[in-house]
Amino acid sequence: MPESNSPSIPRRLDSAAFASALDEIASIVGAAHVRRSASELDAAAKATIPAPKRPGAVVHPGSADEVAAVVRVAQRHGLSLWPCSRGRNWGYGSATPAREGTVVLHLERLDRIVEVNEELAYAVVEPGVTYRQLKRHLETHHPRLWCDCTDGPPDGSVIGNALDRGLGVSHYADHFGALCGLEVVLADGETVRTGGGPQDCKTWHTHKWGVGPYLEGLFTQSSYGVVVKAGVWLMPKPDAFCAFQFDLRDESRLPALIDAVRTLMLEGTIPAASHIVNDIVALAILAQYPPGMVGKHSRLPDDVRAAMRARYLVHPWSFGGGLQGSAAVVRAVKRELRARLAPLGKLMFIDDRVVRAATIANRLARTSFAAPVEWAVRRFAGKSLEMLAAAPHVHSVLQGTPSDYFVRHAYFKSSLPKPDVADPDRDDCGLIWFAPIAPMTGRHVEAVLAICRPLFERYGFDFYAALLTQNPRSMIVLMAIFFVKQSAEETAKARELYEALGRATGAAGYQPYRVSVTGMGEVAGLAPDFAALARTLKHALDPNDVLAPGKYGI
Amino acid sequence: MPESNSPSIPRRLDSAAFASALDEIASIVGAAHVRRSASELDAAAKATIPAPKRPGAVVHPGSADEVAAVVRVAQRHGLSLWPCSRGRNWGYGSATPAREGTVVLHLERLDRIVEVNEELAYAVVEPGVTYRQLKRHLETHHPRLWCDCTDGPPDGSVIGNALDRGLGVSHYADHFGALCGLEVVLADGETVRTGGGPQDCKTWHTHKWGVGPYLEGLFTQSSYGVVVKAGVWLMPKPDAFCAFQFDLRDESRLPALIDAVRTLMLEGTIPAASHIVNDIVALAILAQYPPGMVGKHSRLPDDVRAAMRARYLVHPWSFGGGLQGSAAVVRAVKRELRARLAPLGKLMFIDDRVVRAATIANRLARTSFAAPVEWAVRRFAGKSLEMLAAAPHVHSVLQGTPSDYFVRHAYFKSSLPKPDVADPDRDDCGLIWFAPIAPMTGRHVEAVLAICRPLFERYGFDFYAALLTQNPRSMIVLMAIFFVKQSAEETAKARELYEALGRATGAAGYQPYRVSVTGMGEVAGLAPDFAALARTLKHALDPNDVLAPGKYGI
Repeated sequence: MPESNSPSIPRRLDSAAFASALDEIASIVGAAHVRRSASELDAAAKATIPAPKRPGAVVHPGSADEVAAVVRVAQRHGLSLWPCSRGRNWGYGSATPAREGTVVLHLERLDRIVEVNEELAYAVVEPGVTYRQLKRHLETHHPRLWCDCTDGPPDGSVIGNALDRGLGVSHYADHFGALCGLEVVLADGETVRTGGGPQDCKTWHTHKWGVGPYLEGLFTQSSYGVVVKAGVWLMPKPDAFCAFQFDLRDESRLPALIDAVRTLMLEGTIPAASHIVNDIVALAILAQYPPGMVGKHSRLPDDVRAAMRARYLVHPWSFGGGLQGSAAVVRAVKRELRARLAPLGKLMFIDDRVVRAATIANRLARTSFAAPVEWAVRRFAGKSLEMLAAAPHVHSVLQGTPSDYFVRHAYFKSSLPKPDVADPDRDDCGLIWFAPIAPMTGRHVEAVLAICRPLFERYGFDFYAALLTQNPRSMIVLMAIFFVKQSAEETAKARELYEALGRATGAAGYQPYRVSVTGMGEVAGLAPDFAALARTLKHALDPNDVLAPGKYGI
Repeated sequence: MPESNSPSIPRRLDSAAFASALDEIASIVGAAHVRRSASELDAAAKATIPAPKRPGAVVHPGSADEVAAVVRVAQRHGLSLWPCSRGRNWGYGSATPAREGTVVLHLERLDRIVEVNEELAYAVVEPGVTYRQLKRHLETHHPRLWCDCTDGPPDGSVIGNALDRGLGVSHYADHFGALCGLEVVLADGETVRTGGGPQDCKTWHTHKWGVGPYLEGLFTQSSYGVVVKAGVWLMPKPDAFCAFQFDLRDESRLPALIDAVRTLMLEGTIPAASHIVNDIVALAILAQYPPGMVGKHSRLPDDVRAAMRARYLVHPWSFGGGLQGSAAVVRAVKRELRARLAPLGKLMFIDDRVVRAATIANRLARTSFAAPVEWAVRRFAGKSLEMLAAAPHVHSVLQGTPSDYFVRHAYFKSSLPKPDVADPDRDDCGLIWFAPIAPMTGRHVEAVLAICRPLFERYGFDFYAALLTQNPRSMIVLMAIFFVKQSAEETAKARELYEALGRATGAAGYQPYRVSVTGMGEVAGLAPDFAALARTLKHALDPNDVLAPGKYGI
């Protein structure tokens, strides 16, 4: 039963009042769009994080008007709503609320691509629109435009990720940065458009700051409103594009690599985002725990990890990203990258030619030529066949084509084989992201790694670390805790590790860039003055705590 | 006497209460830092806009703590404060408040450069720090870093301009975009740091969004707090730099040029900001109204304008900006620009070599060789000597060295000669900016020009238009109304034109990117839903309207 578990929210609904509120909502959205049976709620309570909270119901409005009407009903009845766009927020809580019993306001039926402006390179979408859907729409109707996507779930929401300030893979990786012009349903059911412009404002989706106070940031990582429409900036298909992939020769030179990446980004030679990933990231993408090890070892024994590294030719740290622009500029950048990174390791460019060669090699590897092909690929490209098979996926995700390929890393420690279509919630994969952000210097990133790596060891988990450039000055140190959900002990330990990581990095002055619903209480404790301001705003905009109670601790 | 002229703020202070509040403030900041005499207030009421409002006093705190203490006194006594950083907001209201009698909270004494981080390329400054001061500090102590500046007043505030979301001239031109990590005194006197990070948060000045709701936008173009410290992103001194200058051959091809600029920016070939300026902009920089014309003609007669264009070899539209990056990338970009712009007009690059040549030519032009030098410069470079003299200023402002050179355009219609150091407030120059923003397409920008140009003609003012790239999708159509302040008729007409421009562009769906204190009431009328939200926030954060009453109509 939906009871707010926050002492600051005294109101409670008894079963009958709750049922009658849901009935009223059903009369708005249709009975088929209110999920309230035990089995439906069991499914809705599934998430990869430890101990996800069970929602009181799941409501699926079909339009922005229905969203506003549902919010008004919730306001009247003292119901709390947890807005969620697509619910693919794996590792951060999926579609589960921060508090037991909150009603999930699921927006997947708001899936219209309202407009694509080819000249000005933007789309206007609803929160149910996915990366896959947007890319297909562009390929079909506007092939001159590319979108950014994440290497996460292809059916994740474009808006949902941006409102969580998630990161993509191209130079439009800063998804909130590329959001422009929101339509928001407030807690009183009123709808507001950001930007302060006149009716039919021509720059609503082109001028991010608008006029008057810039308020869009209010609706990110927060509980101040329900975004029902947004402009998303797109890229013109570039004249030239290629991916690059770089293996760091000497592990101890990681700080030098990070400093080089910062310099290259600050001077504008390479754009956000590029990723530096460690061996466990690569292994989680390319492979799974060896048979019989899941449940027996909470982390790969060192010798097994070493053997897997050798088997897949995985380096301790690799670096990759995409380059795009006019042909002349891309050529110049490639030359520059070669000159700057050569002293540190091996650089390779992945263009259409390489993708074709990789495809052929992969096809041959499934024939009787497997052995000589594998030998040749290892010998001359320095890659395993599995890694070569990854090249086309890297090449296409950087162009905005999302893929299940990468996100199946969630099954690294699953006893199930990796499925074609990943659904780690359904498949009980244990995964929680921990994502502090550091100034992009070798010293700072090393400091964060030095705090976290021993904690992973102490709690007995594989140390998965991906270093993502959020901007030229900041690097997200994205760590995954893979745990076996079926093991109560591993689950408890995963949660303890998560909390220990938060405490240790916070004490050292590093903030998370984003938190899972598990850690939302803690994050508000980091900055009491900031939290007080955020609560003042919450009280002004949503005094009855109707929207997303507990989100980011507010 | 300070009386709020808004019917929504009923409280009034009588003279004695007001004097006693000021006495209390004097006890905090020192009596010397409270200006309240009639002559001081006369000076403080000077601004280039029509009918500036007279403040009730001007208070100059010396530290953030003093700011907080003054705000608390104001809160207690029902006094209203108008925060102003340096007051060089010429054309937008300078240091004058939106309402008669508001006490100006002048922050020029908060002029510390708190920190410069060379590795991560940012500075932390107080609101009194000027562009000139910051550039000199960098040149002396951190020559490897460049800052952006505007082509406006060198003694303008770095923070003040950013909070007004002003625009600079380099690829860090979006000054609010380059602001990261604020310390803000709220209306209750409490201080808050944005970003939500822990004490001593390492990414406070590197990660713009922080964690939890992104709230920095609240403190721009608004009255929600007093920013007393901010991080400002800087650029590493590039390997290569040059300016470019382009003259459009055929006036009717302006839309094609705008579309080309958008394409070049969207693909990343050229960065923000570049400027397209019309003939009146160039003439205002290079020259003044011919003798005897000020006061006689409110706009240049067509034949005079044509003669001046010929005299100074000014084109109807010119385009310019800076390029920086690694040497190879800059070379590639130059080639690309040549290929793309050649069909439309004449492109010239201004590098150190050209600057040296211009300097020599200018020196020779002051000797007996003047005539042949001028002939040669006009014949071979296609430039007037005056225009050649501008090249070094263009070259250096794009590197962050501010200069009085450009801003002396405010004296275009003054009967005073252009002074070395511009002070258009003191010198009674009449200037008001009108700055709508349009999607960056030839069609939209032409539409705005087609709305505004006839209004300038109807009201009898020179049509000054500079097209500034705010981002790859949006162009600010910056228009100046130059009027003779001594003429009541011209002043009234300037104000009427300003209002007519606002009505006409608003009705066509174009919003201003920024408004002068004169037009702040109107802007809130553009978007009632947005204004209602902004007022809810104002009520929550500053229920007694202590801070900047009337700012942006809120």
